[in-house]
Amino acid sequence: MSESHASPFVSFKAEWIGLEAERRLVRLSQYGADDRGGVTRLLYSASWIDAQQALAAQMAEDGLEVRLDSVGNLYGRLQGEAENEGVIVTGSHLDTVVGGGKYDGAFGIVAGMMALRSLKERYGRPRRSIEVVSLCEEEGSRFPLTCWGSGRILGSYSSAIAATIEDGDGITLQAAMQEAGFANEEKEPIRSDIAAFVELHIEQGGRLEDEGLSIGIVDRIVAQKRATVTVRGRSNHAGTTPMHLRKDALAAAVEMIEKLYRKVNEEGGPLVATVGFMKLVPNTPNVIPEQVTFTVDMRHPDDFVLDNCFAACKAEFNASASRLGLSLNMDLWMDSKSVAMNASLQGLLREQCDRSGVRWRTMASGAGHDAQLFAPFYPTALLFVPSRGGISHSEHEYTSPEELGTGIERLTELLYELGYRNREGNAS
Amino acid sequence: MSESHASPFVSFKAEWIGLEAERRLVRLSQYGADDRGGVTRLLYSASWIDAQQALAAQMAEDGLEVRLDSVGNLYGRLQGEAENEGVIVTGSHLDTVVGGGKYDGAFGIVAGMMALRSLKERYGRPRRSIEVVSLCEEEGSRFPLTCWGSGRILGSYSSAIAATIEDGDGITLQAAMQEAGFANEEKEPIRSDIAAFVELHIEQGGRLEDEGLSIGIVDRIVAQKRATVTVRGRSNHAGTTPMHLRKDALAAAVEMIEKLYRKVNEEGGPLVATVGFMKLVPNTPNVIPEQVTFTVDMRHPDDFVLDNCFAACKAEFNASASRLGLSLNMDLWMDSKSVAMNASLQGLLREQCDRSGVRWRTMASGAGHDAQLFAPFYPTALLFVPSRGGISHSEHEYTSPEELGTGIERLTELLYELGYRNREGNAS
Repeated sequence: MSESHASPFVSFKAEWIGLEAERRLVRLSQYGADDRGGVTRLLYSASWIDAQQALAAQMAEDGLEVRLDSVGNLYGRLQGEAENEGVIVTGSHLDTVVGGGKYDGAFGIVAGMMALRSLKERYGRPRRSIEVVSLCEEEGSRFPLTCWGSGRILGSYSSAIAATIEDGDGITLQAAMQEAGFANEEKEPIRSDIAAFVELHIEQGGRLEDEGLSIGIVDRIVAQKRATVTVRGRSNHAGTTPMHLRKDALAAAVEMIEKLYRKVNEEGGPLVATVGFMKLVPNTPNVIPEQVTFTVDMRHPDDFVLDNCFAACKAEFNASASRLGLSLNMDLWMDSKSVAMNASLQGLLREQCDRSGVRWRTMASGAGHDAQLFAPFYPTALLFVPSRGGISHSEHEYTSPEELGTGIERLTELLYELGYRNREGNAS
Repeated sequence: MSESHASPFVSFKAEWIGLEAERRLVRLSQYGADDRGGVTRLLYSASWIDAQQALAAQMAEDGLEVRLDSVGNLYGRLQGEAENEGVIVTGSHLDTVVGGGKYDGAFGIVAGMMALRSLKERYGRPRRSIEVVSLCEEEGSRFPLTCWGSGRILGSYSSAIAATIEDGDGITLQAAMQEAGFANEEKEPIRSDIAAFVELHIEQGGRLEDEGLSIGIVDRIVAQKRATVTVRGRSNHAGTTPMHLRKDALAAAVEMIEKLYRKVNEEGGPLVATVGFMKLVPNTPNVIPEQVTFTVDMRHPDDFVLDNCFAACKAEFNASASRLGLSLNMDLWMDSKSVAMNASLQGLLREQCDRSGVRWRTMASGAGHDAQLFAPFYPTALLFVPSRGGISHSEHEYTSPEELGTGIERLTELLYELGYRNREGNAS
């Protein structure tokens, strides 16, 4: 066996590793599988609980020490020699959007588990402890807040907020958490012992594929705003109410959304905006809608540009509501600033990619990730593998085994440098 | 006591009668009551069954022979002397829209029961049998079809269709009917013994109130079309998909609805159109909508004008879908022509109103009613009482006791002429 490689990892077979990752992802996707091939695994739902339990069993099989914190973040730990040099953490989120894919979030967890198993088998005990975490929630698909898992680890959310947040069925986050067996105060989620956080994720866009690249090294996550808009008019009979006497909440909402899209298209990329959720009351064919609720999701890498565009749209919405004589409420429930990733870790990744002959690029992330909650507190890296056709949040989400394997190799080598050789990262 | 009145009914106290009607309507509104003061009584639901049973008990107390047919239409009969001169039928529908009012449909049933009780107490057995009917369904709020009750009586729907129609939860009309204890073949709903049909209803619009009138004598019910439009695009991530690469089903639907309202407003009254129902898939804030389903309800008194406007909107929808590269399906599930009411019965009502000093007008009905299914087969009359503020299909629906009482007096007198004096109507 030749030992001439510059890196001990080049001899790994990316595709073989990727096939094992794919098998694990397919197994995990049975929890919350729908009949179209998609996955719906909302926070604290039955399928989420089953998936988290399956991961715990797999972590134990991978030789890791398993623990759950009080909100349902699941950790697998590879104990290190040094007690006071902090913990290297890798991982991503277990929850999905409604009708999502097999890779989003889940890949970062599976990759972390496989990397830790491989490191343990090859190199034994690391200097710093290394952990993989399956974060309980990131998407904001069940409750109107995102990154509940990493947010609690970093103290961005208090436990008190859980009693005030409700899902679409009026169940509070607190009640859902208790129903799932969490919310005990024993294993407090907040941590202060992290030396570095590394997240591996699918790109969820089409740039890497377009450019024939295998790895995206993220330098920045875009700023995001999400708001819920409620328009209130007057319900009335669809046949007997002349058009000019109506207070039709949907007609007003349609005008607002049309203005939103026109404005965003005029501004041009990289600004994006989406109305993904809408609810009519009473939602009956022959009744004029009294109330329409819809969400606005708007993103841009530059905080200032995003603030301006959002304010302009809000002014347009108010102008429509006022002209049509309807009431309007806008609840801005997410307002995250643009976040930079750690420069030293980006440098280390670039070096490793170049040494291994992996084609990479630096890029911004148009999607939010748990990494953005860690980045203000700890040296944080975010790596992407390509998404076929740029498709995500859909049953058509796909990354080839070879590309999965290349991502896992890069993650494994980075964790080796951080955990075994103490390159970069904070001492806690 | 003076006997100088031209009509025996002028001495009735409209307000006293109306207060009894209001008490009955309030009692009935407990079945399906919501916490806003509205009523939701969907076909074959638990609240619908309870309400129909309460009406059956009340009919028996009013001295009527009670029977249910095989789809759940409830009859109260006042037996006449003549066997071969047909039956005079009055009544309306028991079901409501989601979050509807206490008066729509229910008033016509309550009024019929009170009229029959009053006629029986004052005049005994009529010449022709007179029946009040509580029709099982008219609104089309649970299943995508309207007037299931009168449609089955008149043979407009076959029983076979019930297996093919589903509600929003995927329950077939057939299954819902069986669950409610109907769909036995013993008491076949089809009838051929009707001499005349009379329906008393709230106006659901504001013309009578505006003009200070008590009774609307309907000459024509508008033509109506209702369609379900399905737009299919491609689901994708709200943050990583540039605007120009999206196939956003909601953005397309918004453009279509905006065009629809612009076209209808340009055409002007009496054309009306409403998008009352909308459903997004997957309906999540951070996912681009893959599919949007919405309904279009369009009405005009002139069949030809309605056909043209609807076709023009359909062409606009197709143009949008084609330009944006999305697929479009339009399912026209209701297409009812304009229907004229019986001229002789209108004349009789005008005479009676004038004789009693009741202020009335002739008007078209912008709403569909069970009367329009009876009208092509039997002499049919439709009378309106005012709706406060023109509001209907809402918890704010209201008609004063005095106006309810005036309507019941007019109905009672018309039934007297038809049932006791054999004025007008077909011999069966």
